[in-house]
Amino acid sequence: MGDSGTSNVWQEKVSWAQSKRDASLAKVEPQLQGLPSPLPPNSQELPKSVLTTRELEITENYSVTELLDILRQRKISVEEVTRAFLRRAAVAQIATNCLTELLWDEAIARAKHLDALPEPTGMLFGLPISVKEHHGMVGPNVTTSVSFVSWIGKEHGSNLLLDTFWAEGCVFYARTTQPQSLMHLETNSNVYGRTVNPYNRDLTCGGSSGGEAALLGMRGSIFGIGGDIGGSIRCPAAHVGVYGFKPTTKRISATGQLSAMVGKETILSTVGPMAVDRASLSLFMNVALSAQPWRQDPSLTIKPWTPYTFTRPLKIAVQWWDGVVRPHPPMARALREVAAACRNAGMEVVDWDSEALDHRRGWEILSKLYWPDGGREVMGLLEESGEPVLPLTRFIIEEQGVRDLSMHELWEFCAQRDAYRAMYAQAWTATATATAPSSGSSEVDVILCAPSFGAATPHDRSRYWGYTAHWNLLDYPGAVFPVTTVDAAKDPVDATYVPRNEEDRFVHEMYAPERYVDAPVSLQVVGRRQEDEKVLAALGEIERAMGRG
Amino acid sequence: MGDSGTSNVWQEKVSWAQSKRDASLAKVEPQLQGLPSPLPPNSQELPKSVLTTRELEITENYSVTELLDILRQRKISVEEVTRAFLRRAAVAQIATNCLTELLWDEAIARAKHLDALPEPTGMLFGLPISVKEHHGMVGPNVTTSVSFVSWIGKEHGSNLLLDTFWAEGCVFYARTTQPQSLMHLETNSNVYGRTVNPYNRDLTCGGSSGGEAALLGMRGSIFGIGGDIGGSIRCPAAHVGVYGFKPTTKRISATGQLSAMVGKETILSTVGPMAVDRASLSLFMNVALSAQPWRQDPSLTIKPWTPYTFTRPLKIAVQWWDGVVRPHPPMARALREVAAACRNAGMEVVDWDSEALDHRRGWEILSKLYWPDGGREVMGLLEESGEPVLPLTRFIIEEQGVRDLSMHELWEFCAQRDAYRAMYAQAWTATATATAPSSGSSEVDVILCAPSFGAATPHDRSRYWGYTAHWNLLDYPGAVFPVTTVDAAKDPVDATYVPRNEEDRFVHEMYAPERYVDAPVSLQVVGRRQEDEKVLAALGEIERAMGRG
Repeated sequence: MGDSGTSNVWQEKVSWAQSKRDASLAKVEPQLQGLPSPLPPNSQELPKSVLTTRELEITENYSVTELLDILRQRKISVEEVTRAFLRRAAVAQIATNCLTELLWDEAIARAKHLDALPEPTGMLFGLPISVKEHHGMVGPNVTTSVSFVSWIGKEHGSNLLLDTFWAEGCVFYARTTQPQSLMHLETNSNVYGRTVNPYNRDLTCGGSSGGEAALLGMRGSIFGIGGDIGGSIRCPAAHVGVYGFKPTTKRISATGQLSAMVGKETILSTVGPMAVDRASLSLFMNVALSAQPWRQDPSLTIKPWTPYTFTRPLKIAVQWWDGVVRPHPPMARALREVAAACRNAGMEVVDWDSEALDHRRGWEILSKLYWPDGGREVMGLLEESGEPVLPLTRFIIEEQGVRDLSMHELWEFCAQRDAYRAMYAQAWTATATATAPSSGSSEVDVILCAPSFGAATPHDRSRYWGYTAHWNLLDYPGAVFPVTTVDAAKDPVDATYVPRNEEDRFVHEMYAPERYVDAPVSLQVVGRRQEDEKVLAALGEIERAMGRG
Repeated sequence: MGDSGTSNVWQEKVSWAQSKRDASLAKVEPQLQGLPSPLPPNSQELPKSVLTTRELEITENYSVTELLDILRQRKISVEEVTRAFLRRAAVAQIATNCLTELLWDEAIARAKHLDALPEPTGMLFGLPISVKEHHGMVGPNVTTSVSFVSWIGKEHGSNLLLDTFWAEGCVFYARTTQPQSLMHLETNSNVYGRTVNPYNRDLTCGGSSGGEAALLGMRGSIFGIGGDIGGSIRCPAAHVGVYGFKPTTKRISATGQLSAMVGKETILSTVGPMAVDRASLSLFMNVALSAQPWRQDPSLTIKPWTPYTFTRPLKIAVQWWDGVVRPHPPMARALREVAAACRNAGMEVVDWDSEALDHRRGWEILSKLYWPDGGREVMGLLEESGEPVLPLTRFIIEEQGVRDLSMHELWEFCAQRDAYRAMYAQAWTATATATAPSSGSSEVDVILCAPSFGAATPHDRSRYWGYTAHWNLLDYPGAVFPVTTVDAAKDPVDATYVPRNEEDRFVHEMYAPERYVDAPVSLQVVGRRQEDEKVLAALGEIERAMGRG
């Protein structure tokens, strides 16, 4: 970083980071020509205007599994694939501002190395993988800021998961944006600015793994690595209509990931996949766990990836709302449509009564446990550089009753968390013996629910976390999948609805179909803690019920 | 508790608790006649002087498995077994002061109920089980003090593990002592006084599950429930020559257990078995996990008990010392003898270099994380009643650099803990690839080590925790098993030894064989985190190498 490391002017540090990003993008060749100006609201057609037919074919025509197949068979070179995704990622950057860095030279060198091997080796041979920036990465010139201005230029070591994927033959080629503090369900920082939704630039891409989402939503990536402590994989994946999976904590190692509040154990984040197809979710888990990461990171659960197979029709509980905030009409429609498809496929569909389970109480516990120091460490990092505190940072730290807890208060909230988790688990267990006729006799397999109160919000409006964060409180695995898009005809405002509380009013008043043009609507499948494999198996069953392969 | 609940005089509360204990013991019939006075140093012959031949047969002639077999076949009534163990427990109480309460009426009523069942049912049908007091227990007259005077008379709910064992047909008949604060490796409290070693009353029974140990060492129980956060199962089991197993945390539920510092998650305690035979350890685990306790307590790891079988000779690493404190001569001899037996049985025996792994550093982290509040909550509980702070309470809270940590200091120590754990795991993993000729090529299966620097210490001298607590820091499962007894001829003082540090000098100077007459000497088998089944399998292999069945 040279002299700027000692500068007090935060903008100078930002300039350094942006210059590094811009220099990495300037390497793209051939350079991108012919993009419209101004950019249209929806970025989906932009790749067609600048990429070659061959590049479009490579980046659009294959699932991850298919691409891996032709790479392994050497029907296509790693370098050609890599160059196509590098160029498409550069288009995505122009469209959505999703990159912190394009690894042009490094990726092409890696691709050439893989192409020169006598035999293709590794479960991810030649696959381009994009990575949320704060996961870090080894390399001679790699720094990781976590979008803190204070940390711009920060050096670090390797990342266990990335090392595993590298050993399996992947190509890292793009690093992606995240919001200030990592704790927004949008993606905006003073370092890289705002990342927007590739379907509608007036909407957020979601967050905190929003750079990944925007890149995936443009097919500038088909397989990415995100992280989730309150919705940070599921929310952005949902907002761009791709797949995302938050596993139970302690299945995937976060060793090497950079973040604030290291050593905090009240609520843990999880690393997980974001991808354009469902099969990639289990591929990610299988590759990560095949390496037995628990032999290096002993905090992990020793359990190989163990695919689950249903031997009877699923019993699905639908959470129509969470008892606090009513979902927007398109989300309610998505729930109805998928529930109907499941029922038509012979599954048992029951209601999940989140109101009785007091999700609001869950949030009161969770929000404190996100910031047991009252946010002092993170606010201190912001103050250190002098960068402005962004509105959604203030929202999550200053508007949720967060406090610097004494040790005994900390224990009290942890005990409340544990009691809440036990109550919830026992409620789930009790579904096996419930006597209500509609509940049947077997235990609920998964909950089908919204991953957000609606489609991607207008910017700076993602102020209700309950639809994702509740499952972080419980440490339940959750997968999101695309269902539909907002449709003005099908999804009118419900003018008769009377909001129940302040958050409900805020959310209700946000909705008008014309604000959400082209916005994807996704759903979430949630399972009991540690039942990761079952969640992905259920997702497969549900999608098959929806007529997907 | 009547009026004494509001009294400020702590001795009144103690009188109430002791009266309750004494009243429970007064129910024994026939009453115990013929015990010598004064009691001899070694209590092992006392049962013979007061129990009937039939009672001695029932309590001495059967392993737990054998007793379960004849109970299930109804070759003996539950009531007869229960009465025999109740009477023997009463002898143990006189000999060692190990009980907080004898459940005379409750146990006999339960036994009659089980005898009246048309068919014997449950994996533990008719088995008398003793329980460390702080685990709590349901019942109309049951209170649990955790040996805090402030909590005398405290009421509480049920205990998930006990409920499971109850559902499997056991009989609870005795509740046992634990030390003030639960954080001594001895057993002494202002509520019940001191529990002594059944082999030598001038020595400790160990702690904190010392009442269980003393009772088991008298065969006043053959199957008990203890808990371990720093050695509290393994140390007392070792000191009386019985078996004990500390599983990985989050395999056995502690739901319903009472203790101070609820909600603290820096270092967790584990519940586990203490028993007179090895097979009981896996029986305990199998019964506990067969109930799928994770369906009620979602903090538990979902993993049934999955017995492990070795398909090649074990690779055992012997920790000859921990790099801080040199074991006493009888312990060093036990290690040599068992290592030789393993080698003779064809196992690969290598050295474990704990000095290089800096166990002292481990203790510096661990001791802080036992008391993140500087011990304020526990000291406050003591102050509340006015009971005196015992020397070993002062030792562990006030002499180890314990402090009331700020939130950021807490995180820093947790991060240090996690880094230490990762370092240790990586060192273990590296044993598979070590190039030293003696290391062979496969990974070390288990570590064979001391469970204490020596046999049971004279009272108030258990001031070095490293041999057990280190494995709590790492969350590694550990089982202890009896090996030998102190032998003045074989175990002379090593007068040439020059202590390395203050603790080493304290420990070295403690040893003289004449202080340890008849004292059992045990060893410990430690495995990697979550490899609980492998540890018990290894224990079986080692004992077979020693010529045991």
